[in-house]
Amino acid sequence: MTAARYDVLGIGNAIVDVLARADDAFLQQEGLEKGIMTLIDGHRAESLYSAMGPAREISGGSAANTIVGLGMFGGQGAFIGLVRNDQLGGIFRHDIRASGVTFDTPSAVEGPPTARCMVFVTPDAQRTMNTYLGAAVHLSPEEIDEEMVAASKVTYLEGYLWDAPPAKEAYLKAAKIAHANGREVALSLSDPFCVDRHRASFLDLVAGHVDLLFANEDELLSLYEVESFDEALQRVRGHCKVAALTRSEKGAVILSGEEIHVIDAAPVEKVVDTTGAGDLFAAGFLYGYSKGLGLDLCGRLGALAAAEIISHYGARPEADLAELAKAVL
Amino acid sequence: MTAARYDVLGIGNAIVDVLARADDAFLQQEGLEKGIMTLIDGHRAESLYSAMGPAREISGGSAANTIVGLGMFGGQGAFIGLVRNDQLGGIFRHDIRASGVTFDTPSAVEGPPTARCMVFVTPDAQRTMNTYLGAAVHLSPEEIDEEMVAASKVTYLEGYLWDAPPAKEAYLKAAKIAHANGREVALSLSDPFCVDRHRASFLDLVAGHVDLLFANEDELLSLYEVESFDEALQRVRGHCKVAALTRSEKGAVILSGEEIHVIDAAPVEKVVDTTGAGDLFAAGFLYGYSKGLGLDLCGRLGALAAAEIISHYGARPEADLAELAKAVL
Repeated sequence: MTAARYDVLGIGNAIVDVLARADDAFLQQEGLEKGIMTLIDGHRAESLYSAMGPAREISGGSAANTIVGLGMFGGQGAFIGLVRNDQLGGIFRHDIRASGVTFDTPSAVEGPPTARCMVFVTPDAQRTMNTYLGAAVHLSPEEIDEEMVAASKVTYLEGYLWDAPPAKEAYLKAAKIAHANGREVALSLSDPFCVDRHRASFLDLVAGHVDLLFANEDELLSLYEVESFDEALQRVRGHCKVAALTRSEKGAVILSGEEIHVIDAAPVEKVVDTTGAGDLFAAGFLYGYSKGLGLDLCGRLGALAAAEIISHYGARPEADLAELAKAVL
Repeated sequence: MTAARYDVLGIGNAIVDVLARADDAFLQQEGLEKGIMTLIDGHRAESLYSAMGPAREISGGSAANTIVGLGMFGGQGAFIGLVRNDQLGGIFRHDIRASGVTFDTPSAVEGPPTARCMVFVTPDAQRTMNTYLGAAVHLSPEEIDEEMVAASKVTYLEGYLWDAPPAKEAYLKAAKIAHANGREVALSLSDPFCVDRHRASFLDLVAGHVDLLFANEDELLSLYEVESFDEALQRVRGHCKVAALTRSEKGAVILSGEEIHVIDAAPVEKVVDTTGAGDLFAAGFLYGYSKGLGLDLCGRLGALAAAEIISHYGARPEADLAELAKAVL
């Protein structure tokens, strides 16, 4: 095994977030279920955007957010995902590269525009997401750069891409390359409804291809179709090498064989927007993991990054994560 | 004179702001002068964007910010400005309309892309702006909707558009229509360097066509080529019907004939980004003015809106300005 060029390679949807405030009445009026991610088509995207208030655009995408966070901790990150050669695609590419992440996937030159996710942030700081996948959904095995996967300590996959069959093939290809090269594979379940749509396939994936599993409580209950966190905990034990389970303000539980850590959530002065909490937990965790730190420290770095991201709008960090990390390391 | 359909019509550059943090070393390295607006061409825009950190996009444009603020106070606003039919143009149009502003100027279907302004925010909360005018610079008399001008109590012009000759003609056309219909014309000087580039022409404009002048201290000193605020104050007296002069943390001075008001700045917990302070002062002032309030109240509404905008990133308000205004009204 040659020396790794990247700590973590993320593969996921290349998305620009469009964030606006909304109240509960708006969610009801538009038939939006709070806190979850819904896939929408181009027509719905247009009509929903017309109803949306004044917005701001901040690059997003679950795995992309994670890799940007990893880079801001000081890790070497790379990303594979598909944008169109349009202005939003240019914004996505600029932002991820400006964060120090290697992102070389060529832009699509035809087909649908760059993906966007309309994020409605309610006064309770919850985010309700509506994603038009556009170009991102056309990610295929062709985009998987074999050398890049082989050169990455961990290849991190977001569950959201499971919604697109060619992207799923791309994931499986990446997982096989990683393992053939003695590397590890991580998966984030992304969303309980996403898990619901692909449960059998996720269970196979976790059992057969995943070394590190990231999931929040809802996703985990959905995956194992159980009622309590503790039941899920017993099920996930041994199902993969490491499981990092997040529980919002209750903190996180990290499992690996007989080892278990219960990590408190890091304090937040005011929760503004929970978009990206899971993505940034994974960023901190993977940074620590790729540097060979103990799982307890990995968990604490994850909690720190999650606390930073929910204290402001958007899912790209604003604070200097490497500086924040000094409190833990 | 028929009843006015709009309180204020803004005419200005239709711009999307691209905001990122930067430190003083970055400004020096890129040869950027802190606190001012520099016009750049497409090539420079590309190279500067490459050097810029991760950014967020928030609709901007000086007069556009003012009209959006006016709308958020509860005023009826309209805007004339030119975008291209591209994704950034779509974002600009969405955001201004979602704020309740009437914006019907057709998009350009050829020529340069929608204007953008790269805003570098330093740790001292100052903003240094680099504007690629793109489509906005092609605003011409053709875009001036005569009925819209005639139906607006005040037509508000931003000095920045003076950099483009056809836009200047558009302004003069709008000013003439406004006055022919018994309406008023307001001008914001925008920037001391902009005043420097067009001093003679601004002096003629103020003397011949402007009822309400908005200027900050630097702009005013530049306009009259004097050394102190008090000297400038003596010069502007009688030069136009109303002058609203802003002095950052020193507050504002409002002049009209023999009437004078000295308004304190509204308190701000933490100044985050001064982008849009002048634009939003004008918003509050014009809201009060168009509703027939006393000039002291107009000034206090301006100070409130300026305080709101500098407490967060971007030049579009986040708080409910109509709610904030209750403290004053």
